[in-house]
Amino acid sequence: MAYINQYTSKLDQLNFKNMFEGDFFLTWEKTFDEILATFTVADALRWLRENNVSTRIFDSGLGVSLFRDNSTRTRFSFGSACNLLGLEVQDLDEGKSQIAHGETVRETANMISFMADVIGIRDDMYIGKGNTYMREVARAVREGFVDGNLEQCPTLVNLQCDIDHPTQTMADMNHIIHYFGGIDKLRGKKVAMTWAYSPSYGKPLSVPQGVIGLMTRFGMEVHLAHPKGYEVMPEVEEVAGKNARLSGGKFTKSNSMKDAFEGADIVYPKSWAPFAAMEKRTGLYGDGDFDGIKKLEKELLAQNAGFKDWECTEELMKTTRDGKALYLHCLPADISGVSCKEGEVAASVFDRYRVPLYKQASHKPYIIAAMIFLSKIKCPQETLANSVSRGLPRCFR
Amino acid sequence: MAYINQYTSKLDQLNFKNMFEGDFFLTWEKTFDEILATFTVADALRWLRENNVSTRIFDSGLGVSLFRDNSTRTRFSFGSACNLLGLEVQDLDEGKSQIAHGETVRETANMISFMADVIGIRDDMYIGKGNTYMREVARAVREGFVDGNLEQCPTLVNLQCDIDHPTQTMADMNHIIHYFGGIDKLRGKKVAMTWAYSPSYGKPLSVPQGVIGLMTRFGMEVHLAHPKGYEVMPEVEEVAGKNARLSGGKFTKSNSMKDAFEGADIVYPKSWAPFAAMEKRTGLYGDGDFDGIKKLEKELLAQNAGFKDWECTEELMKTTRDGKALYLHCLPADISGVSCKEGEVAASVFDRYRVPLYKQASHKPYIIAAMIFLSKIKCPQETLANSVSRGLPRCFR
Amino acid sequence: MAYINQYTSKLDQLNFKNMFEGDFFLTWEKTFDEILATFTVADALRWLRENNVSTRIFDSGLGVSLFRDNSTRTRFSFGSACNLLGLEVQDLDEGKSQIAHGETVRETANMISFMADVIGIRDDMYIGKGNTYMREVARAVREGFVDGNLEQCPTLVNLQCDIDHPTQTMADMNHIIHYFGGIDKLRGKKVAMTWAYSPSYGKPLSVPQGVIGLMTRFGMEVHLAHPKGYEVMPEVEEVAGKNARLSGGKFTKSNSMKDAFEGADIVYPKSWAPFAAMEKRTGLYGDGDFDGIKKLEKELLAQNAGFKDWECTEELMKTTRDGKALYLHCLPADISGVSCKEGEVAASVFDRYRVPLYKQASHKPYIIAAMIFLSKIKCPQETLANSVSRGLPRCFR
Repeated sequence: MAYINQYTSKLDQLNFKNMFEGDFFLTWEKTFDEILATFTVADALRWLRENNVSTRIFDSGLGVSLFRDNSTRTRFSFGSACNLLGLEVQDLDEGKSQIAHGETVRETANMISFMADVIGIRDDMYIGKGNTYMREVARAVREGFVDGNLEQCPTLVNLQCDIDHPTQTMADMNHIIHYFGGIDKLRGKKVAMTWAYSPSYGKPLSVPQGVIGLMTRFGMEVHLAHPKGYEVMPEVEEVAGKNARLSGGKFTKSNSMKDAFEGADIVYPKSWAPFAAMEKRTGLYGDGDFDGIKKLEKELLAQNAGFKDWECTEELMKTTRDGKALYLHCLPADISGVSCKEGEVAASVFDRYRVPLYKQASHKPYIIAAMIFLSKIKCPQETLANSVSRGLPRCFR
Repeated sequence: MAYINQYTSKLDQLNFKNMFEGDFFLTWEKTFDEILATFTVADALRWLRENNVSTRIFDSGLGVSLFRDNSTRTRFSFGSACNLLGLEVQDLDEGKSQIAHGETVRETANMISFMADVIGIRDDMYIGKGNTYMREVARAVREGFVDGNLEQCPTLVNLQCDIDHPTQTMADMNHIIHYFGGIDKLRGKKVAMTWAYSPSYGKPLSVPQGVIGLMTRFGMEVHLAHPKGYEVMPEVEEVAGKNARLSGGKFTKSNSMKDAFEGADIVYPKSWAPFAAMEKRTGLYGDGDFDGIKKLEKELLAQNAGFKDWECTEELMKTTRDGKALYLHCLPADISGVSCKEGEVAASVFDRYRVPLYKQASHKPYIIAAMIFLSKIKCPQETLANSVSRGLPRCFR
Repeated sequence: MAYINQYTSKLDQLNFKNMFEGDFFLTWEKTFDEILATFTVADALRWLRENNVSTRIFDSGLGVSLFRDNSTRTRFSFGSACNLLGLEVQDLDEGKSQIAHGETVRETANMISFMADVIGIRDDMYIGKGNTYMREVARAVREGFVDGNLEQCPTLVNLQCDIDHPTQTMADMNHIIHYFGGIDKLRGKKVAMTWAYSPSYGKPLSVPQGVIGLMTRFGMEVHLAHPKGYEVMPEVEEVAGKNARLSGGKFTKSNSMKDAFEGADIVYPKSWAPFAAMEKRTGLYGDGDFDGIKKLEKELLAQNAGFKDWECTEELMKTTRDGKALYLHCLPADISGVSCKEGEVAASVFDRYRVPLYKQASHKPYIIAAMIFLSKIKCPQETLANSVSRGLPRCFR
């Protein structure tokens, strides 16, 4: 009981009442207090589980997932988060479903939600589509709830869209906070969010965008580096700039991996596709121009190949703060000589950071659970304290 | 406690003791009391969930589903119903299973049922097959239970067969009862169960058959209308006729959508395939004559195209009782100008009824849960009352 | 309470403390006490379920499954076992996953295990691969646990590999024990583990190998018979020989189904592929020589066809002890005239043993649950007794 206080007393200092009955689309739509509340609840749930205390808040209920792109990490993280809270996952596999040609989003959303407490969606393939789709689903189920068709209104959790990947970057950020020992230790730290070479094509922009949109809120210097032509969405750069000004940090940019790594405390080298090309691709897709898409893919691979020196090598790592920057990756990484001939990161660098990388990933289930928790529970402090006092173990060993 | 009485006292008036340890294949195999008991338990479970009372009756156990046809609505309804009662869904995906060539139904049924409390099957593709298959499964697990191989006998719930679609039509019927304010308000009401044009081919007959087999039991006039050549199973028409005589209602037929809609209180315009053609198709399938099937499909599409005027238009709706008949559909509908060029229903009609249509669909999870509940619980009144008195919330908010 | 004593007092006599926090790869890595403890816990869990006592030991948690080969029986058994103990199954479908080319086993294993209490793997396709892979996964998650990335260390349960099929053979053995009325009744009994003809190709060796590796530990004579060229792994034959010497039984071999059946108390006729051919196939697969694989398959089918007389016929059954040997099969069987023209067993023999065959299969969920239970629970006697005393029913009927 004494120990759960460390979390509930933090929550007492924060204003997050608007998260109740809300959704989670983009981190920059949340106040700083709401972001901190999410980390605090994630940590509390983790502490409870580590101490074999049941964290179920649902006796029954469904967590609906929709993955429009392959997924292991996020799929298992979402499944774990739902299970942790007592929800059973029901996957909407569009291939096995009778979703009629022209069926409205509103209809599908209602049909899957009669007993859904959360809907998690990954839809990151086309610029301008994924996030829009999620908001349409969220609006539809809210209407369904108001109309009395749904007993409860499921909360929408963005499991990666064309703009942001909040469950990933919130996990990344919580990892950083734990690694450096608290938010107050982050002021002035330098984060290098840099492009890196990969032989594959068209990786989503949601991670670099999400990182610059979130990490600029902690008073750090976030440096975005990429070759010319690999720009991210201008709107998100604006968000990052504004965040940095408000938090007393910096948002800087360059076309040099070297500049980014120089003196960095944290490095996040990762491949992504150029925003402009992805926009073009969405247009081609809309026109059904598949030959055009193939041609574009070829061009992009050729363009990528011009930047094979954008690799996170031992040499580059030596230029970071004391040669010991924290290396981050959302995984899986393209490891040179392991998963590909030439890739994002040297095998020896990756191997040295394997344990912290897995630790980084381990935050994701708790971040997702915290997002659900905060949207469903009106008085989280009380519910967390009750979890301890009711004395129900997770495993009756 | 006072409020659960409204359901338990209704149950006290009904004789449904044969539902215990039974299956649910066809509505017309159930007595009227049993039908009413199903509605009452469905309403009670809904009331409990709306009031955040846990309705779990299983601490562990499986609900096995087998979908031989694509499904979203019924899949999620079955999943929701199982979850509501505490069962975890395990889907038998015949594609991923090692079901040997020639493996008997008896063997498969036993192998999947060691811990199954319910088996839900959708098998609606071939006339004479689906319902037969379900009964074979039910017989096999009953033998397995008697032989001591299975610890419990799973109840079989028909999630749509070639003859009936009881979870759909029971949901439809409960929606009607709620809409009109009670069973006693239905006497003399006119239901138009009519064929409607769709550019797709071979929609199952289970809904129109299920509707005329069930709705004729409530003293209403059920009018079945379709173009010549779109007859349903004669056996089910006989059932409908008999039901109407017994209930003091009427079962009428015509080849005119106009006649059907004239003064109707409820309209259910929906495409289906001609019974005779479906029988022929089953024969061709049995012979492995896939060229014959393709030829038949072409013929049927051409036949359909002769009846594009069978559309639920605003003009037709105006001819219903006060121009305000309750429009029903099992969804997804073929909406003219939305999901197809010409379809079952005008977009403006469909849009006006969106909220009641979703409400109609929202009954299905509770209907399925009630079917399971009544087959598993000997004294439903007691168990429902205990749900309230044990004070376990569904969500510990 | 009196009755659960029959199981807990048996456990009091056995030393199985090393099973706690352990894995289950091969039966011959377990002491005889550990094998007996597994049967005892399986029986106890079954007794509890039969008496409507909840056997949940987890309030939340995941059971991760990975099937690299199609499966119905084992999939449902694993799902049932997890559900029985309170774990939700999350299937790692490699087709739907974003497992990168070259992604290490260590990484995947950690990514799926943040909340996994058990990982069940079937990987039986290539000699030298399946078991090795499982051990790699087990090592990876142990490291992840030690490193603090995983809150708990999932136990690895072998759901069939290239060497053994412990959940199958343990279920088979428990069936034998119950059938003959106890372990003390088995001394001197003769088991015929024989090859049988099947028109299909490349069935795994794990069952015959698992059977001779396990059943030789009970003082029985285990006779392995197969045509020349259908040898099993020599290492496992050595294990069987050693086991037989230690248990006071016998391990004999022949190339005659007739000799094997002569006077047998138990017969287990089943097709498998020659070990040497399977090794060759693994090599061809490693070289990507798919033409070579096709050629090998043709050769093997031709080789098989030379032994169509290896069928479990009524004539052969008459030569067993009193003509009434217990017929075993892991199912599905290739039944002559039913699932194929000529197969492993005559239809009349198979039909006569249908009930015991299903009973045999019914042990598997409990065996798997016992394996999980013993690796998770430090004092199984206490936990089993508590299951009764806490008075939580499985079904609140």
